Amino acid sequence: MIQAYAAEAAGAELKSFSYDPGPLGQDEVEVEVESCGICHSDLSMLDNEWGITQYPFVAGHEAVGVIRALGSHVSDRHLGQRVGVGWYARSCLTCEQCLSGDHNLCSQTQATIVGHFGGFGDRVRCQSTWAIPLPPELDAATAGPLFCGGITVFNPLVQFDIRPTHRVGVVGVGGLGHLALQFMAAWGCEVTAFSSNPDKTDELKSLGADHVVNSRDPEALKAVAGSLDFILSTVNVSLDWTAYIQALRPKGRLHFVGVVLEPVPVNVFGLLDRQKTLSGSPLGSPATVAQMLRFAAHHSIAPITQAFPFSQVNEALAHLRRGQARYRLILTH
Amino acid sequence: MIQAYAAEAAGAELKSFSYDPGPLGQDEVEVEVESCGICHSDLSMLDNEWGITQYPFVAGHEAVGVIRALGSHVSDRHLGQRVGVGWYARSCLTCEQCLSGDHNLCSQTQATIVGHFGGFGDRVRCQSTWAIPLPPELDAATAGPLFCGGITVFNPLVQFDIRPTHRVGVVGVGGLGHLALQFMAAWGCEVTAFSSNPDKTDELKSLGADHVVNSRDPEALKAVAGSLDFILSTVNVSLDWTAYIQALRPKGRLHFVGVVLEPVPVNVFGLLDRQKTLSGSPLGSPATVAQMLRFAAHHSIAPITQAFPFSQVNEALAHLRRGQARYRLILTH
Repeated sequence: MIQAYAAEAAGAELKSFSYDPGPLGQDEVEVEVESCGICHSDLSMLDNEWGITQYPFVAGHEAVGVIRALGSHVSDRHLGQRVGVGWYARSCLTCEQCLSGDHNLCSQTQATIVGHFGGFGDRVRCQSTWAIPLPPELDAATAGPLFCGGITVFNPLVQFDIRPTHRVGVVGVGGLGHLALQFMAAWGCEVTAFSSNPDKTDELKSLGADHVVNSRDPEALKAVAGSLDFILSTVNVSLDWTAYIQALRPKGRLHFVGVVLEPVPVNVFGLLDRQKTLSGSPLGSPATVAQMLRFAAHHSIAPITQAFPFSQVNEALAHLRRGQARYRLILTH
Repeated sequence: MIQAYAAEAAGAELKSFSYDPGPLGQDEVEVEVESCGICHSDLSMLDNEWGITQYPFVAGHEAVGVIRALGSHVSDRHLGQRVGVGWYARSCLTCEQCLSGDHNLCSQTQATIVGHFGGFGDRVRCQSTWAIPLPPELDAATAGPLFCGGITVFNPLVQFDIRPTHRVGVVGVGGLGHLALQFMAAWGCEVTAFSSNPDKTDELKSLGADHVVNSRDPEALKAVAGSLDFILSTVNVSLDWTAYIQALRPKGRLHFVGVVLEPVPVNVFGLLDRQKTLSGSPLGSPATVAQMLRFAAHHSIAPITQAFPFSQVNEALAHLRRGQARYRLILTH
């Protein structure tokens, strides 16, 4: 039996929950969870905001731990290996996307917390491909958020061939944004942070921002018009997107990794005139996760976390709901 | 004096108009116009739809002709050389965009018909860089539309690294779209034409379409969901853009070269889920125009045109206004 924390209904408190996971799949590994980050998506799923949650619901998709069991066909992992398990627990491995190295774009992905029990427990399972080995240089106690927040902001740098000569921006400096600043600075870019809280300027600069712009000040946004090659939006609220498109240089890209529910009204001439682009992307492939981990190890990039014991999971969720996470919460055993 | 056709006010009939162009600029050439295509932008400018028209207004930005005068500093062109003059008559040549080969993204471009007299006349002037030599294999009488319509649809294939293995689509088969179909088929792609007039199916296939989809049939659009890597929209009306984004494959791009005035409402999750992109671009650089002309010559790609004598310019404009151009109108002396 796996001991976990589950909600029985939308928005309910998590309670101790034990379940029999059945026989281990031939291509699966079972990971003993050492720690698990809490992502805003865990809250969205808990509250059934996207209408796809199944109860009892076990959240957690930023888990780090040690492989304690291997499916009979698993040859790419070994017992005792420390790995991370992120948003995806499985992909088909046989479609064009998987065969092209874009496993995260596979239409048959199994998300770790959608119709599957996640990492808020003592064990979690996934396809071996998606249990990504953690380099020994990285701190197992805080690395969890790299497997969702980290890969989400790192992957676009790879996908869109961002270069060290590019001038880049990050909109929203929370769990995702504080990692984006670190990655982009290490990437060699000149980095602008757009934050609604300019009091954090010194902190944002210590994370890698060269410039800080008050995202609530229309004049400040105007002042950076035409100055950025790439803007990464990590927020899930509607902003004045036209102002951010105007902040792009020719051939610039505004890229969304945060899900904004309201449609973004795009002025076609605003894109066409200077060849600008709008896009979005979900997480990253296993190969890109491994690249990210090596890059993080090389550049000493780590999530800034606040730890809660698993027994205080409800307190931790309440902390996140109040917007008090600085910058990512982690549950530990 | 240059003999031209000009409108004195928004939407007015064109009348004979002669003007003194003054001394030829040091970096300019003067081209004796042999023929000039009529683009929908000529109508938009004539009607002052974009609020930037200056009167008397001389339209025409798809001119082909022969260089009859060279500015004192011009060394890259010669007298008697046959060239085309498109949307741009000048760029600064010194900014980062020009120095990077992206002259069409220069913020100092001079458009041929904005505050400048265009090609509806016996002569037209432009900076020598923007008078692009016409390969002798191309028919001077019909090549004009390549310099606006042609480069507008060819340039994205270059900019976004469209590959022969890509499945591509064209929305709207008019002056731009009929050239896009030819370029894409010659590019090696599997091509889908989205047309509101499925009666044209045989004609669209002869232009290069492998498949024809009725753009007014929601069920037909649904049937192609997830099937295209690249969709080029040439229309200037609002369509069900969400359906076109859904027609994209993972990593697919919906690209606008037609100016749609109503904002396009973009569902961020629809982009993010499968890493899709929305973008726009204006025309192309001199180097890309030259590439396009070589490619057109190699593949025997030509605009399909209907010719009117310059003396019937108003009849030609009326023909275009009625939506009767198949596919591009050309004025000839």
